[in-house]
Amino acid sequence: MYTLYYAPGAASMVVHLALLETGAPHELKRVDLDAGAQRDPEYLKLNPRGVVPTLVVDGQPLAESAALLILLAERHPEASLAPPPGTPERAAWYQWVVYLSNTLMSAFRLWFYPQDVGDTPAVREAVQRRIEGVWELLDAQLATHGPYLLGERFSGADLLLTMLMRWSRNMPRPATEWAALARLAERVRARPSWQRLYEVEGLHEW
Amino acid sequence: MYTLYYAPGAASMVVHLALLETGAPHELKRVDLDAGAQRDPEYLKLNPRGVVPTLVVDGQPLAESAALLILLAERHPEASLAPPPGTPERAAWYQWVVYLSNTLMSAFRLWFYPQDVGDTPAVREAVQRRIEGVWELLDAQLATHGPYLLGERFSGADLLLTMLMRWSRNMPRPATEWAALARLAERVRARPSWQRLYEVEGLHEW
Repeated sequence: MYTLYYAPGAASMVVHLALLETGAPHELKRVDLDAGAQRDPEYLKLNPRGVVPTLVVDGQPLAESAALLILLAERHPEASLAPPPGTPERAAWYQWVVYLSNTLMSAFRLWFYPQDVGDTPAVREAVQRRIEGVWELLDAQLATHGPYLLGERFSGADLLLTMLMRWSRNMPRPATEWAALARLAERVRARPSWQRLYEVEGLHEW
Repeated sequence: MYTLYYAPGAASMVVHLALLETGAPHELKRVDLDAGAQRDPEYLKLNPRGVVPTLVVDGQPLAESAALLILLAERHPEASLAPPPGTPERAAWYQWVVYLSNTLMSAFRLWFYPQDVGDTPAVREAVQRRIEGVWELLDAQLATHGPYLLGERFSGADLLLTMLMRWSRNMPRPATEWAALARLAERVRARPSWQRLYEVEGLHEW
């Protein structure tokens, strides 16, 4: 049994999608970020940094969405979120999940919270350039080796990527302006897990 | 057989340490960053972003040091770099490796290359504060649940953390000013893998 502390559309989204893909029973607890619920003393006991998601696994509270994606893929091999150990795709799976997490998610943190390094036009422009550089690289990867990050084979890395693409929807150049990325997003959004998540989290806009 | 493209003391260090811990045969190829060898067309074929490390596994070139650490731990379970699947420590292992990678390594990138977001005193100060905040959090973790990141049990996450602590050695407040962190570094530096790496990579200063 899993309990996921989430906020609609936040980094918890990829964990929620992974849970839906596995079909594992899970309980959802919404954290009201606008009301500052992520700083409630009770929540901080579970998640000392005061962020979402937290996934409680057998009573153990865990953080870091990319780590939780890897963990759920390992615990539910039948869901095929990750390729089997020992295959070349397995190595690529780890590479892409870590890359998306440490390059793209960390850049988005600066985009949404530029005050962390000083909110100036120069910072915003640099962060925007960096995010667009990642779209460029990923689009080239998908155009030549796609349609998914691991080639012909869907994986949890595509869930993570599509969540991150969604975060760019109000940026000057959203990820969907890159053709191969737009095609990937379309495939992932057609999955039952994505559609179910929109209902459950009450999301509307792409 | 593995081939590691590395630069002394760079992010390749944790992959090199993991290789030494496993005892797996490997070949080393030094990339001369000062001479710009990371932008050689031949190297860019292996590593399109032009960074170290690249680890070639069965002919497949792979990047992302944290992903390579996870991969090597999985391919060499006898080295005990990671706890066995299904244990609570396994979940914590993924959490810490991903956290160190996406929070601390990405902050160091801004520290070493502040021009990426505009090299101003405000940016430098914000990045320094952010890195110190991570030392604070990790020191508290180790003081209460240490001596290692996973408790009584050494893991590859400690190699990653100690490499990152080393990167702070010339900062205004290096990580070793935090007592529990300093104790962890001492343990990791006493390991044969660390000592062997210093010889092979020709490192001297901590």
